[in-house]
Amino acid sequence: MTISREIRLRAKPNGAPVPSDFELATVDVPPPGPGEVQVRNLWMSVDPWMLRALREAVGPEAPPQPSRFGSSVVGKAPHANAVGEVIASGDPQFTVGDLVLSLDGWREVFNTPAKDLERLTPGRLPPQAYLGVGGLTGLAAYAGVTRVLDVKAGETLLVTAAAGAVGSTACQIAKIRGATVIGSAGGPEKAAFLKEIGVDGVIDYKVEPDLDAALARVAPGGVDAVFENVGGRHLAAGLNAAKPFARVLLCGLMTGMAGGASEPVPANLMRVVRQRIRIEGFSAGDHFGEMPTLRALLADWLETGQLQLRDTVAEGIEAAPGALLGLATGANVGKMLVKLC
Amino acid sequence: MTISREIRLRAKPNGAPVPSDFELATVDVPPPGPGEVQVRNLWMSVDPWMLRALREAVGPEAPPQPSRFGSSVVGKAPHANAVGEVIASGDPQFTVGDLVLSLDGWREVFNTPAKDLERLTPGRLPPQAYLGVGGLTGLAAYAGVTRVLDVKAGETLLVTAAAGAVGSTACQIAKIRGATVIGSAGGPEKAAFLKEIGVDGVIDYKVEPDLDAALARVAPGGVDAVFENVGGRHLAAGLNAAKPFARVLLCGLMTGMAGGASEPVPANLMRVVRQRIRIEGFSAGDHFGEMPTLRALLADWLETGQLQLRDTVAEGIEAAPGALLGLATGANVGKMLVKLC
Repeated sequence: MTISREIRLRAKPNGAPVPSDFELATVDVPPPGPGEVQVRNLWMSVDPWMLRALREAVGPEAPPQPSRFGSSVVGKAPHANAVGEVIASGDPQFTVGDLVLSLDGWREVFNTPAKDLERLTPGRLPPQAYLGVGGLTGLAAYAGVTRVLDVKAGETLLVTAAAGAVGSTACQIAKIRGATVIGSAGGPEKAAFLKEIGVDGVIDYKVEPDLDAALARVAPGGVDAVFENVGGRHLAAGLNAAKPFARVLLCGLMTGMAGGASEPVPANLMRVVRQRIRIEGFSAGDHFGEMPTLRALLADWLETGQLQLRDTVAEGIEAAPGALLGLATGANVGKMLVKLC
Repeated sequence: MTISREIRLRAKPNGAPVPSDFELATVDVPPPGPGEVQVRNLWMSVDPWMLRALREAVGPEAPPQPSRFGSSVVGKAPHANAVGEVIASGDPQFTVGDLVLSLDGWREVFNTPAKDLERLTPGRLPPQAYLGVGGLTGLAAYAGVTRVLDVKAGETLLVTAAAGAVGSTACQIAKIRGATVIGSAGGPEKAAFLKEIGVDGVIDYKVEPDLDAALARVAPGGVDAVFENVGGRHLAAGLNAAKPFARVLLCGLMTGMAGGASEPVPANLMRVVRQRIRIEGFSAGDHFGEMPTLRALLADWLETGQLQLRDTVAEGIEAAPGALLGLATGANVGKMLVKLC
């Protein structure tokens, strides 16, 4: 019997989660049964979608979800992407020491059916990179910049929430493609980080009362493409700066993720018509086929220094709720992670 | 010397225009000078863009506009597309009797440089059709349905302001392509017209308190594409009914044209992300190259009865301001025209 600790959802958040919505529990994990694998988590990912999943949590009396990716359940540990190491196996496909990806974050040790694990090939990326730049985060940035926006050399790209995990990767991939990159983020630490990774025009929105004016200053010719991670007045400013036929990718809208309604877009949809702007909703999950290409490119870019990683790391399972609350309020620079082992 | 009457803009409209913003004037038109052509207008087009142009009118002291397509000027007759007949010519390119298209609506007879006229080839379309289905109106519908939305057989298309000039043409072209068409419009006369032209699911939004529920009833499987002419709650309902990867064309947004701010889009942009919806601003003017193809197709469709035209006609130059005011409040079924001769 192995002792593990896990974070459970105590109450469905009413808007943005608060610490009292979570509780720490200690559980005994029996040896894995036939077809099961026992995993000790190394890293847990903290992602914006988790805020929505908690807000849509169902009670324990609700019928079982058809998918493991279904809503969170009150009283249980929620979902989160995690990288762990196999410590015992009841399935011939996995052996002790294998590095695996699961949706079973929020806990230290767990048993799961083998089919719910993805084995990671030990490669040139560190384990936690599979939760960030080598996972859905990086895929969102890569597919968004290269497949949907198709940002070209010489074009100007605006990235909002640019110091976040997706944003900072999108900025760097666009730079590698030869674009001029404008990044907006809140606070001096994030602004400094954006300069470090080569962003050409940095907007600290916390000190800019007028985003339109700030954009006109750093991108006087307007923008060809927008990688939009925020929504609300950020999206409005991007539309106002958009050149004719500009492309706008809606990757995630943090204004709506953190709870409550998303800020409505100000009334500049007429600008979408006049400038013939294309706005496209986007999910990285539609581009899974690009993952092997991305991982190979990433390893090259990291080795040559064209891509720099920055993580914000919380230590230990008890720090996980705070990490998620911090993500909701923009406390992270780069990828938000919890180190579990 | 020829006597003509024209409508002048007396005051810049404050929001939607009112009758006192216009005045009728009588002018003497001298014989055309060298390089000039004298035209008697037959038909004047009444289009949504004219509302915006009047709202953005400049005073007579403003510097001359670089283009004839510039803003309206207070104290002068504004722009409107018009079809007329050459009645005197000082230019060898035009002879008496030629049918010509100009931007010089709002007047009965006028002189203009020959370069500002487009000669229309007498063909299988009636003269006023060049202001509607054979002009920018039809081009918006044709290019929107076939080039941007690329509506396919078996798909479901939602058209808002479906009984208007662009909307009713879009509905019929989508039907010709084999799509299921849902059309929304306000009032029983428009709803009946939509049924006449073969629209599969008709929504009279004036009697539907809940557009989401109405759409769920007539298009229970959702919509693949939206031809959006209105904005506001209509756009919101279209987004709520959109299937994954749905395409939304923003052609014009009547909620913003009629004056004042356009209705903000309710906070369902997260749906754009989740459903990976593509929203695209659109201007028919980008598709002028399709005009010859369109006019040939139109003549065929009219002859076979696959396309039916409906115009709302005001009689005489003095009726032109009322026609524009009527357009702003949705008084027209099909194309709004003023018959001038």
